[in-house]
Amino acid sequence: MDRGRLEAFSDGVFAIIITITVLELRVPEPPDFSWHELQNLAPTFLAYVLSFLYVAIYWNNHHHLLKTVHEVSASIMWANMTLLFWLTLLPFTTAWVGNSYTRDTGFQGTAPMVVYGVVLLLAGMSYFVLQNRIVAAHGGSDSHLGAALGRDWKGHVSPFIYLAGILIAFVAPALAFALYVSGALIWLVPDRRLERVLRDGDDHAHDH
Amino acid sequence: MDRGRLEAFSDGVFAIIITITVLELRVPEPPDFSWHELQNLAPTFLAYVLSFLYVAIYWNNHHHLLKTVHEVSASIMWANMTLLFWLTLLPFTTAWVGNSYTRDTGFQGTAPMVVYGVVLLLAGMSYFVLQNRIVAAHGGSDSHLGAALGRDWKGHVSPFIYLAGILIAFVAPALAFALYVSGALIWLVPDRRLERVLRDGDDHAHDH
Amino acid sequence: MDRGRLEAFSDGVFAIIITITVLELRVPEPPDFSWHELQNLAPTFLAYVLSFLYVAIYWNNHHHLLKTVHEVSASIMWANMTLLFWLTLLPFTTAWVGNSYTRDTGFQGTAPMVVYGVVLLLAGMSYFVLQNRIVAAHGGSDSHLGAALGRDWKGHVSPFIYLAGILIAFVAPALAFALYVSGALIWLVPDRRLERVLRDGDDHAHDH
Amino acid sequence: MDRGRLEAFSDGVFAIIITITVLELRVPEPPDFSWHELQNLAPTFLAYVLSFLYVAIYWNNHHHLLKTVHEVSASIMWANMTLLFWLTLLPFTTAWVGNSYTRDTGFQGTAPMVVYGVVLLLAGMSYFVLQNRIVAAHGGSDSHLGAALGRDWKGHVSPFIYLAGILIAFVAPALAFALYVSGALIWLVPDRRLERVLRDGDDHAHDH
Repeated sequence: MDRGRLEAFSDGVFAIIITITVLELRVPEPPDFSWHELQNLAPTFLAYVLSFLYVAIYWNNHHHLLKTVHEVSASIMWANMTLLFWLTLLPFTTAWVGNSYTRDTGFQGTAPMVVYGVVLLLAGMSYFVLQNRIVAAHGGSDSHLGAALGRDWKGHVSPFIYLAGILIAFVAPALAFALYVSGALIWLVPDRRLERVLRDGDDHAHDH
Repeated sequence: MDRGRLEAFSDGVFAIIITITVLELRVPEPPDFSWHELQNLAPTFLAYVLSFLYVAIYWNNHHHLLKTVHEVSASIMWANMTLLFWLTLLPFTTAWVGNSYTRDTGFQGTAPMVVYGVVLLLAGMSYFVLQNRIVAAHGGSDSHLGAALGRDWKGHVSPFIYLAGILIAFVAPALAFALYVSGALIWLVPDRRLERVLRDGDDHAHDH
Repeated sequence: MDRGRLEAFSDGVFAIIITITVLELRVPEPPDFSWHELQNLAPTFLAYVLSFLYVAIYWNNHHHLLKTVHEVSASIMWANMTLLFWLTLLPFTTAWVGNSYTRDTGFQGTAPMVVYGVVLLLAGMSYFVLQNRIVAAHGGSDSHLGAALGRDWKGHVSPFIYLAGILIAFVAPALAFALYVSGALIWLVPDRRLERVLRDGDDHAHDH
Repeated sequence: MDRGRLEAFSDGVFAIIITITVLELRVPEPPDFSWHELQNLAPTFLAYVLSFLYVAIYWNNHHHLLKTVHEVSASIMWANMTLLFWLTLLPFTTAWVGNSYTRDTGFQGTAPMVVYGVVLLLAGMSYFVLQNRIVAAHGGSDSHLGAALGRDWKGHVSPFIYLAGILIAFVAPALAFALYVSGALIWLVPDRRLERVLRDGDDHAHDH
């Protein structure tokens, strides 16, 4: 299978997820065009920002990972589809988290916050599977890519953050939300190792 | 016509179908953020999973099929459009099937289940037509591709599964749903023959 | 400007228009899962089929036209944007036409049928402008492309069909709809002249 | 990172924003298929035209800017994501501005008009940041691109127009709307300088 078309299809799905999530921001009906309306939308907006961040991070990581692929096997294709499946649920879970906020009590819905975390966890695990299959198809953990990913502390820490969020959502949903936020923020810390190793790999490829 | 643009356009449509179907999962309104809500969404979710699977399978098969195309004729273009047309109806039929479930009676709506099957059947037949036109344009059934597809038992069995589902939907809608599920699952069994024959064909092409 | 990115962007817009129009098919709410519901949806479905056909025709023609472009000037870019603008209104006008049908009276809404025709007319005129700018940028009407399009009777007849539809919609909306259908059908008659001339042009290009 | 995939992803987001904004045009329900309905939709339509124009301008400028990029760093990637983030809010703000119009009072909602301006301002600033990072990565302001953008009066004037609109929205929302319209119109005046400088740059590149 052709890597280019897998990337194009995945890009399409990423782009649509990131754009339609905002459709869940309900447009205030007339005669409500006051600032008050904006306050009501704040929690949904916040949840949107978080989901946008996650999709952007996934797109970025996905881009780097796919660049290392020489041949797309059926197993890589289906691992990729599984990842996209969980990410397509983000618009729904984002809107539900946004709806579960009330001004008196803050984020108080356990169910939406647990479901949001479960979707993050399953997307993270699917990404992990996708990564492993790509490493296995390209020389295993001894390879350039395998070595780079072996030092990938973010990928190893993330699932535990989501898991903690899911558990904490049963007692303090707002704290779970804070955990999901921190789970996104760690990815914004630049980690140049993978890029460097890959660039070195490219240089080697160019040498020959 | 240029194969690349046909693929890009089809990829766009596949990606949008797969992503907007999930918009039919109704976001619970406040103050409903309980687990109860999740149970109500389960049948729509199940129907979504099934439709996601079908679109993923079509995308995968479409990818392999299009790779064999050297020149896109008007007849191939319109066969492809017809396939996309039926697939664009999936978001609607998926939501209708999801809505037809009640906890007391299970899937009891005959009409939505019949319509879902009809859309699958017509999409399957369009794919069959698309395949035939491509084979005809590339040397007929004696060619590499023609021979590979001649052994394509899945493509031959699928329509009968959909047809059985449509008929059974009149007496037992839930059983029809089970048939549509099995109609998707047979495609997940790996079938490496087409890939191998095509790869051999590629090798031949590279030889010259 | 790069032709490839103009095509990719246009393809994205075409693919989204064609796919979201179907979102206007309202999913029946429980407990309505009877055949009766399907009858209510028939006019919207019919309007969807017509709009799908128009978008498919535009995509196909757009593809052939863009293939002749060597350099995308600002004027070609904006003519293309204007065409896309009118086409993005199709989901709305399609749904309005579908809604204007009642079983007792048929298509009886003058306003939606007029608006549908106006959108078709303006899209058609934008396409005409786009075509002229491309011809002007590539040697004028004496060129290969100019000569091919000079014999383009469909492009010259279409606006009059839409105009007739708009006028007739004031007295007989259903007849206007029939005209719009015929305005799409004439494009399905194969016209190999443009393709042949262009292929000859390509051959010439390859000769040198 | 690969420029092609950044462009493809951005194109997808641009195409979806431009197409889904029109979904906010509410389709009149039966039995409302009169001209009266069309009048009610006029302000939302007007707001849609303005947003379409802004997205088209951004897409066009983005295209020219990205063409100058040789290597996409993480900082360019995130600047691009920030720009896309603000633009994804346009469908929401467009619909809110449209809803805030009443026939008796015209555009009278301060909040939606301020929010629309804030989104334009933040998108403009994100574009500015993206531009600066690209210039910095390609030889700084002494480079071809840096010199071309230094004379970019439109980019320097736009933020002040949006800022003026935001302030005026508190006393005269309709005037703010007029300012946003003029903020788009200045971009339609052709400015061939950037294109010329870039073309010269290309020629130089081709020389070597």
